[in-house]
Amino acid sequence: MKFGRFEQQGRVFYGILEGEEVSELDGSPFGSYRASGPRHRLPALKPLLPCIPANFYAAGLNYLAHIEWANKRAGASKKPPAQADVGYRSPNALVASGESIVIPADSPGPVEYEGELVAVIGKKARNLSEREALECVLGWTLGNDVSERTWQKSDRTLWRAKNCDTFKPMGPLIVTGLDPMKQTIATRVNGKVVSEYDTGKMLFSAQHYISRISRYMTLHPGDVVWLGTDGPTEPALKDGDVVEVCHREIGVLRNPVVRAKS
Amino acid sequence: MKFGRFEQQGRVFYGILEGEEVSELDGSPFGSYRASGPRHRLPALKPLLPCIPANFYAAGLNYLAHIEWANKRAGASKKPPAQADVGYRSPNALVASGESIVIPADSPGPVEYEGELVAVIGKKARNLSEREALECVLGWTLGNDVSERTWQKSDRTLWRAKNCDTFKPMGPLIVTGLDPMKQTIATRVNGKVVSEYDTGKMLFSAQHYISRISRYMTLHPGDVVWLGTDGPTEPALKDGDVVEVCHREIGVLRNPVVRAKS
Repeated sequence: MKFGRFEQQGRVFYGILEGEEVSELDGSPFGSYRASGPRHRLPALKPLLPCIPANFYAAGLNYLAHIEWANKRAGASKKPPAQADVGYRSPNALVASGESIVIPADSPGPVEYEGELVAVIGKKARNLSEREALECVLGWTLGNDVSERTWQKSDRTLWRAKNCDTFKPMGPLIVTGLDPMKQTIATRVNGKVVSEYDTGKMLFSAQHYISRISRYMTLHPGDVVWLGTDGPTEPALKDGDVVEVCHREIGVLRNPVVRAKS
Repeated sequence: MKFGRFEQQGRVFYGILEGEEVSELDGSPFGSYRASGPRHRLPALKPLLPCIPANFYAAGLNYLAHIEWANKRAGASKKPPAQADVGYRSPNALVASGESIVIPADSPGPVEYEGELVAVIGKKARNLSEREALECVLGWTLGNDVSERTWQKSDRTLWRAKNCDTFKPMGPLIVTGLDPMKQTIATRVNGKVVSEYDTGKMLFSAQHYISRISRYMTLHPGDVVWLGTDGPTEPALKDGDVVEVCHREIGVLRNPVVRAKS
């Protein structure tokens, strides 16, 4: 099933997508709903963020080839993490598919994409085993963990590197029933594929991350867990670019890039 | 003015406190409101979190004596931060005054308090100068940045060290019009004052933090900025303790401590 959140003439609603047709929901996939509302043609609707997370978790380093590439570029020798310690992002940075990524005027750069698979939590959960972990997942969406690499090195935290306004595109849809370890995530810049990887290469599985988080923290409907990216994340994004994170069923998370004037 | 959020017989509302009397608000201090509702006696109401932040910022290291103490204990030589790089906490961890802090069963400890002054954002804001910074602040509350020191050292991020469920008591009230650089924050454990410091010793002022954050991120009503703690944070909290963060006007943020059984 494919859920989306849409706006039409100022009205905001969830819908279920079938082909190019959206059945409007009375309610939301995070609670109860009836699919008895009007039907819309997809192109007539503005896509919104599929959810606004109260808690926004991000795996960070979760693929070997990305760590090796980052080490090589920086002349560093950062080891793969020994355990699944999750990081945070901040909802201020979220934008939907179609909205612009704005590079701050004073960013030294490079600013890079990171195409990611994202788990969307559907049910309140605590203390799940790995076997139970996916029971609390409503479905899967895409994220672009846009990163300012100079600030990632210079700042004590990742605040500007990862959380500037517009640095966290997410969407376009939430797709249920995917096996998170058997997906292919591709990223295109200006139509050219610049990254493509299989989620089976995660260092710590989606199930492991969700189980481990839930041991210490209550997961809430609408929370998200971004699962990291693999391989290089070049070329750097620049004013006028269009970056797309792509998945066969979730669709295309497409964002133009602009540079702020001041 | 003193704002609080309360529950009575399942009903949740904001109120303005005068003495021991609470005037119920129709609306909220984060939007528009009328103070035309019923009046309640404070002891008849259950205090709730004064707000649920969408974005939860924390200054981290912002006082010299705390850094020096932490260095001495750890045999470390961490330098004071060169710039105001803000960190994050996660709303899952928030609890109101009166709720228990639960130490996870597998926590090696020590688990310690950090009494803090907290800025509560009242208006959407971007690109504020330091002079303008306080214009977006609704008022001030208290926070207890409960920290698991072993996990703070062992984990790649602060996720468990700072964000386990119940590790972020906040409240009890939001007080308007305070000068954030001229306050005294005290912490008591089992009635004994264990920490007392003046906010004038912040390395980076509240105004500087808010201005700097707003240069890259939109601040939203209900967002909070925790401003760090000074000095030692001993003794460690243990099952059966009561920890209180205290301020003359904001009041007492009081939380019992329990240790989870498994």
